[in-house]
Amino acid sequence: MANKNNKNESITARDVDFAQWYTDVVKKAEMMDYTSVKGFIDYLPYSYAIWEEIQSYLNARFKKIGSKNVYLPSFIPSSLFNKEKEHIDGFAPETLVATYGGGERLSDPLIMRPTSEVLFCDLYKRQVSSYRDLPKIYNQWCSVVRWEKTTRPFLRGSEFLWQEGHCLFETEQEAEKNALDVLDIYMDMGKELLAIPFLTGIKTEKEKFAGAKATYTIEALMHDGKALQSGTTHYFGQGFAENFGIRYLGRDNALGVPHQTSWGVSTRLIGAVIMVHGDDNGLVLPPYVAPIQVEIVPIRGENENVKAACEKVLSELEALNIRAEVDNSDHTPGWKFAQAEMKGIPLRIEIGPRDLENGKCVLAKRVSGEKVTEDLEGLASKIPAILREIHDTMYQKACERLKENTKVVTNMEELKAMLDKGGYAKTMWCGDRECEDKVKEETQGGTSRCMPFDQTPVGDRCVCCGKPAKKVIYFAKAY
Amino acid sequence: MANKNNKNESITARDVDFAQWYTDVVKKAEMMDYTSVKGFIDYLPYSYAIWEEIQSYLNARFKKIGSKNVYLPSFIPSSLFNKEKEHIDGFAPETLVATYGGGERLSDPLIMRPTSEVLFCDLYKRQVSSYRDLPKIYNQWCSVVRWEKTTRPFLRGSEFLWQEGHCLFETEQEAEKNALDVLDIYMDMGKELLAIPFLTGIKTEKEKFAGAKATYTIEALMHDGKALQSGTTHYFGQGFAENFGIRYLGRDNALGVPHQTSWGVSTRLIGAVIMVHGDDNGLVLPPYVAPIQVEIVPIRGENENVKAACEKVLSELEALNIRAEVDNSDHTPGWKFAQAEMKGIPLRIEIGPRDLENGKCVLAKRVSGEKVTEDLEGLASKIPAILREIHDTMYQKACERLKENTKVVTNMEELKAMLDKGGYAKTMWCGDRECEDKVKEETQGGTSRCMPFDQTPVGDRCVCCGKPAKKVIYFAKAY
Repeated sequence: MANKNNKNESITARDVDFAQWYTDVVKKAEMMDYTSVKGFIDYLPYSYAIWEEIQSYLNARFKKIGSKNVYLPSFIPSSLFNKEKEHIDGFAPETLVATYGGGERLSDPLIMRPTSEVLFCDLYKRQVSSYRDLPKIYNQWCSVVRWEKTTRPFLRGSEFLWQEGHCLFETEQEAEKNALDVLDIYMDMGKELLAIPFLTGIKTEKEKFAGAKATYTIEALMHDGKALQSGTTHYFGQGFAENFGIRYLGRDNALGVPHQTSWGVSTRLIGAVIMVHGDDNGLVLPPYVAPIQVEIVPIRGENENVKAACEKVLSELEALNIRAEVDNSDHTPGWKFAQAEMKGIPLRIEIGPRDLENGKCVLAKRVSGEKVTEDLEGLASKIPAILREIHDTMYQKACERLKENTKVVTNMEELKAMLDKGGYAKTMWCGDRECEDKVKEETQGGTSRCMPFDQTPVGDRCVCCGKPAKKVIYFAKAY
Repeated sequence: MANKNNKNESITARDVDFAQWYTDVVKKAEMMDYTSVKGFIDYLPYSYAIWEEIQSYLNARFKKIGSKNVYLPSFIPSSLFNKEKEHIDGFAPETLVATYGGGERLSDPLIMRPTSEVLFCDLYKRQVSSYRDLPKIYNQWCSVVRWEKTTRPFLRGSEFLWQEGHCLFETEQEAEKNALDVLDIYMDMGKELLAIPFLTGIKTEKEKFAGAKATYTIEALMHDGKALQSGTTHYFGQGFAENFGIRYLGRDNALGVPHQTSWGVSTRLIGAVIMVHGDDNGLVLPPYVAPIQVEIVPIRGENENVKAACEKVLSELEALNIRAEVDNSDHTPGWKFAQAEMKGIPLRIEIGPRDLENGKCVLAKRVSGEKVTEDLEGLASKIPAILREIHDTMYQKACERLKENTKVVTNMEELKAMLDKGGYAKTMWCGDRECEDKVKEETQGGTSRCMPFDQTPVGDRCVCCGKPAKKVIYFAKAY
């Protein structure tokens, strides 16, 4: 399975075996390690730092919509978990259940949270009694456990990290707005941080979250043509609040039931970044989320002048809050280049004795492989614009790929061909579950991804049954 | 239990019933709520934001000693947990054990981590094979579960939030240095962030961490005279690494066993902040950790000029990264003052129509109750220095209190009297466990807190048995 066209022969080529390429990359870039429990991974610094950048971006944005961070227990008593039927039907099969505490059998077993709707409902029942207590816009960063049979690092794991926002509002309008505002934040995160364009829209009845009235989604396109659901926001209506007995005295002095939302993204986004941008040489990280933005490689690092020049550039970059490091290891420059490429570091600065004599250095961009010579004088101040340009290039590249791989189809033949090839099929649908099921069967796994907000028709007949169509919809094979 | 001397009559007076005062404060300041599972609490925004300030401070400092953040699983397989005998003896009685996953009985039950030494050992066994892989300096922010019988918000809970650093080094010297460097970071955090002076030193054999060779501690003095262990760092020697089979090829080409440390502080620090600084009117928060540093209270807030002046000050403060808010609720100014005091907001700015005419406002400092009139013009730029001064005042006050309540004692009579009264008894000890046990029995619960680094003798006989003394030691009653 060696990869002939790259400099990093230990990484399988993407087009030979994409799954193996992915496994090679996450291991070799030291993003994760497998643990002794199946489906649980160690998040190593090189992936956790990406997660911290995502946290920092989202915390700033969530704050602007009035969200506050909290932390609720990891465990849900079985008795509480059983209160919302649809919800429990969705999650019960994949729970991890604690039955002993302090050496004694628990009378009410504790379920490690697969998601925290019921815990937030339990809290809000205690905290909300008047319209003055609304809205409640709380978010938590935590891990959740879902006992999965088939797992893959970052994409699907028995334990993963996420944020989950849970909110209550007086009116349906406010709640709907909140679910859509957060969807916008997620879209912006894609554009500004991850360099990923998401398709967005509303999920079908079949694909929506257990217990939700409406589920909105962001969907990314991976290099292998598969879709990855990368985050969701939900409008719950009043169902949970009814079941959990949350009531408030309204402005009209009558008892009301609040309207609820929840929303979340997870460490799955790390998988999206890897599979959207990576290439045969390894990771390609977008600059604003990269743990190391600039790698400085000394050529003949034993040369004192070279060493000093590298350190000078490093401290100038750090002064600009650019995440940089000098590779002072005892490897060859060639090895260091390959290593920096495998780790997807957006920009490499090479400084050697000859460059130094001419006051120059070489810049190499990971995304394009392009190398240019630059003046060392005033170098650091040029880097922010170069990182911005790299980000824009990566985002444009991903946008073009999404566009090229999204096609309108009007019949099952075309739909099947499209989904076999990979990418999103945009088509019309009658709205019946039967057709959705049939598409899945006939395309061997193609699922509806979302119904876009722009419902300009691309036909008038359902792609499956040929009856009058009600909805524009995207189908794809998905992770 | 009403509190006559304060403005917040719903809070019990500290000297009437300190435990009730604490419970009143954490509830009324909306720091936490009780959940339906005993010992598990909801961390609400007003306490979680304090935790985030602590995280931010420590992350910056940990980075400087080369620490990187990771995330390891929440669960430890029983088989792995049982590998280190001393450790398991220390933690097994208080574990929460999951026995079912995905509807099936687990062949190897999973223990919710009470601490993650064994998980880090398991990771390091896979990651470390050469001296080039050392040092490993990893930290994680997570929650841990210890099934406690007696719980109290933030001080002792069945689930709490913490950071745990786990490190491996080639030499004992490096490991010892790491444990002491982090102790310094914790001491600095007390001084610079929490305004708490910690006593520090090494724990006795009896009080050290299960499996450690040496445990260093930071100990705070609460208002009621009790000590609170607020953080620890441990040097493990090679014990864990031996048991877990961690070996590396050394510089000398021989197989070596690395030297290990771990260190942690938890949300218990929030309890320390409350109990060191709080008073009969509620919380008193040190400025650098306070979620809201400045509360702006409009007097006659319906007045448009007053409203505009408040918003202007707010935006000027925010531009300086000062955490401020305007209380625009429909309560009276008096209620707002009491509320801001109860929540411990370090500085209050009162702006009314009459002040405004004269270009003035009133500043009220929470720690002293002192009120001064200030020019509105250029006000914001003066606030950072005022917050600094408030912080310094609070730290000095806490230092004086610690000094006043730390006394040298030379016999059991004095020791008993001192520990009854509250505070730290500094004395001499022969080093025998029997005397430590006897002190605990005779003082009804007094325990050794630490042996300070400065071992200048304060006598030559053991306070308990009268035999020649070996160690200077602090005793206190503790949480």
